[in-house]
Amino acid sequence: MLIRLLTSCKPGVIHDWAALERDLKRFLEPKAVVSRREELLVYDCDGLTMDRHAPPLAVLPKSTDEVAAIVAACHRHAIPFVARGSGTGLSGGALVEEEALLIVTSRMRRILAVDLSNQTITVEPGVINSWVTRAVAGDGFYYAPDPSSQVVCSIGGNVAENSGGVHCLKYGVTSNHVLSMRVVLPDGQVTELGGALSETCAIDLRGAFIGSEGTLGIATEITLRLLPAPQEVAVLLADFPSMESAGEAVRRITAAGVLPAGLEIMDHTCIAAVNAAFAEEEYPPEAGAVLLVELDGQSLEVKDAVALAITLCREAGAGEVREAWDEAERARLWKGRKSAISALGRQCPSYYLQDGVVPRTALPSVLAAIDRLSAEHGLVVANVFHAGDGNLHPLILYRASDPGVNEKVKTLGAAIMELCLAAGGSISGEHGVGSDKRCFLDRMFSEDDLSTMKRVRLAFDPDGLANPGKIFPTPKSCGESQRRVVALERSGRRLPDGAGVF
Amino acid sequence: MLIRLLTSCKPGVIHDWAALERDLKRFLEPKAVVSRREELLVYDCDGLTMDRHAPPLAVLPKSTDEVAAIVAACHRHAIPFVARGSGTGLSGGALVEEEALLIVTSRMRRILAVDLSNQTITVEPGVINSWVTRAVAGDGFYYAPDPSSQVVCSIGGNVAENSGGVHCLKYGVTSNHVLSMRVVLPDGQVTELGGALSETCAIDLRGAFIGSEGTLGIATEITLRLLPAPQEVAVLLADFPSMESAGEAVRRITAAGVLPAGLEIMDHTCIAAVNAAFAEEEYPPEAGAVLLVELDGQSLEVKDAVALAITLCREAGAGEVREAWDEAERARLWKGRKSAISALGRQCPSYYLQDGVVPRTALPSVLAAIDRLSAEHGLVVANVFHAGDGNLHPLILYRASDPGVNEKVKTLGAAIMELCLAAGGSISGEHGVGSDKRCFLDRMFSEDDLSTMKRVRLAFDPDGLANPGKIFPTPKSCGESQRRVVALERSGRRLPDGAGVF
Repeated sequence: MLIRLLTSCKPGVIHDWAALERDLKRFLEPKAVVSRREELLVYDCDGLTMDRHAPPLAVLPKSTDEVAAIVAACHRHAIPFVARGSGTGLSGGALVEEEALLIVTSRMRRILAVDLSNQTITVEPGVINSWVTRAVAGDGFYYAPDPSSQVVCSIGGNVAENSGGVHCLKYGVTSNHVLSMRVVLPDGQVTELGGALSETCAIDLRGAFIGSEGTLGIATEITLRLLPAPQEVAVLLADFPSMESAGEAVRRITAAGVLPAGLEIMDHTCIAAVNAAFAEEEYPPEAGAVLLVELDGQSLEVKDAVALAITLCREAGAGEVREAWDEAERARLWKGRKSAISALGRQCPSYYLQDGVVPRTALPSVLAAIDRLSAEHGLVVANVFHAGDGNLHPLILYRASDPGVNEKVKTLGAAIMELCLAAGGSISGEHGVGSDKRCFLDRMFSEDDLSTMKRVRLAFDPDGLANPGKIFPTPKSCGESQRRVVALERSGRRLPDGAGVF
Repeated sequence: MLIRLLTSCKPGVIHDWAALERDLKRFLEPKAVVSRREELLVYDCDGLTMDRHAPPLAVLPKSTDEVAAIVAACHRHAIPFVARGSGTGLSGGALVEEEALLIVTSRMRRILAVDLSNQTITVEPGVINSWVTRAVAGDGFYYAPDPSSQVVCSIGGNVAENSGGVHCLKYGVTSNHVLSMRVVLPDGQVTELGGALSETCAIDLRGAFIGSEGTLGIATEITLRLLPAPQEVAVLLADFPSMESAGEAVRRITAAGVLPAGLEIMDHTCIAAVNAAFAEEEYPPEAGAVLLVELDGQSLEVKDAVALAITLCREAGAGEVREAWDEAERARLWKGRKSAISALGRQCPSYYLQDGVVPRTALPSVLAAIDRLSAEHGLVVANVFHAGDGNLHPLILYRASDPGVNEKVKTLGAAIMELCLAAGGSISGEHGVGSDKRCFLDRMFSEDDLSTMKRVRLAFDPDGLANPGKIFPTPKSCGESQRRVVALERSGRRLPDGAGVF
């Protein structure tokens, strides 16, 4: 560590890492400061495994006070920092691209307060998503946002990425379930965003912070809304001869006014991978697609909705429709969907997971176009997605050892993003922009839209220390496509000094 | 108008109103520029009638382009502006306190697009809240947020104040129903916040903008989420001997896991006023309180919930419990509640309406304390409120002609706000801070919280032209209580130059 004295991350900027490390060790216990190269290697990527870079130094704080002191030290030394939860993010949000201190929240795992009469729970950012429901399930409550990675991903990471999950169709994403946050700002000050009451006043900065991917600060205490567990939950699994017929079932179900808690489609590639992964055959092997429908609510309502959904699936061309009413049975039907990505990993060791959103009505044409692109580029693309809200998750499968494959995979990924944009969609639904999708951002937003966001970012982080380089396109990261933005920034028309730094 | 050449609104700032008026008349039709004193008098207050000040000049634009050109002209002349919808706001948000141009959106009343397959509608800001539901009711949809003023208040005003309404208990406030907005920023640039898809990415500024009370810009096109109309709606009206027993019914209903679409309480003063206002006796005259419960959803679910709610009301001590299942009958039960404030106006010509929020569990003690304060101050306070989310609406009744009454009323209002704060509540649930409540803001938020909000405001409005003086406490408006904040701002520790201007 001592030899890595002076590292520059921006031209002309010299970071005194040794001085920062000395400062940090004044208030952190020795094991909370990680500086050995071998140990730092575990942090060299998040779920976007294609891009890797180990941080020069990492810290593992245990409290808001420690996070505030760490961030204040970074501020004094003008050294950027990146926050990391469980590292399951899929867009490189926790990747340390340039020289920055990595702040890992995995030791901040306390549940600080449970208030059942007001239906809230307050947790530290390292608390795992599924632990929240586990803590209150005995009292008849649960926490709604449920990313597929919910048994490992952290609430802090969910806040940073505004995570969704299967249930966001009916219940909304993370920003719909965070009442308030204690936040360490990029200069080390601590502030409170939102309030414990469902209604607050003045300028509400929760929505801006949630999903800002660590660029506005670090949430260290998060108060979440708890929902009463539904009286009844049923899951249907229907197989279809084709993606089109499964899509038609989704169209009929939503048009009938049924609002399922979850509505998920897996294609034939996923079905084959899941069947290969488990001893028992989970899904009909000949199916072109399977549709999972979860319905929840009052008992009578769910029974009605199940009967209607089965009829509509049949009318759309379903083969078998299985029903599950108890917890173990439901888990069995969900198992393949929840394990789809790992099952695909058995077939092909690496994947690049896209997260495009398209209007529901554009799903069939976009899926057909993805099939064509997959054939053209000679790469297998598996599709597993939240059909109810048009949130696609095409997985491009590849072997990292194939020469030149990274570029080939990224080219296909970009073509899929272009498809989503052309359909009036978004480049990310729930996985964030991070380092991976930033070069598409100026295709979705106008210069003025991006400038407004950057101004707000500057309001939180005038020195550009929090997760630098993420979300916003820069000439360095995006090259030619950035000429317009650079010209605009140089003209000084919209951005104050320093805004071009990001 | 021509004689009002040079008016200064801040010490040392000279505004050239004649030059602004000439500029505006270059692109606005003559009738869209209002400069006669008699005509301007209609804009001298909003729903906070106690505070009045006519603007020096008003404009009535018809499009986003006109709003952008008007705001750009204000920016060139360094003249502040205030946006006004229908003027029904209750916290002085549309009040022109200092010399500012009033921009009235009442001619921007087009419904721009209806997209039923994606459940959205795009409207101009002057569109009246109830028109949105009217436009789509025939197709089985509705717009959820429903302030009591919904037949007159505008969607632009709802966005500025993040309005709630009876249904916000189950369906959330305005910010839960706005998908995207076209916004004119305080320098005249036009930007888009959010997107038509339910999931978006990068920094989401919708939440910060909604409820910012006109201090971040003017929304000129607003895309709203439509909900499918529920299959069944039922309303219960139960009378209780006392506020305590009505509150106990609310406690039992929410503890049983029933989530009504609305849950409203009116006290004896309101009941008497409503009965006096209508030919037929609407509510039991001897009741200490009435509780209105609206339940919606699938037919079977609603029938179950109604039976349970009736039992729980009876157990809590209800007298009669009336049920209404068809639209006309439901409207009849709601009529008294929706007309309560006007009915009170028949008894006493003026009222000062508070909008405190307290944790639901604190409702009984806070209501009892309000009764004591009412007696101490010799002013009648009527209580009508959203019991489900703890949002109180105490109305202080008074005659504006009584000498010195304004100060007396404001003193009692302040005491009620103190009560809400002491109970861990908020000074505003849905009416905004405006000019009326700003001096309480530093009791709810820390210096760092307020500084963070102000920094974001500066990011949108570096020159402080959009609705100046609103929301944030200033030494001028709040006097002594602001010494701490002023000292802080002078020290320059947290705010950039110019932030103290607001």
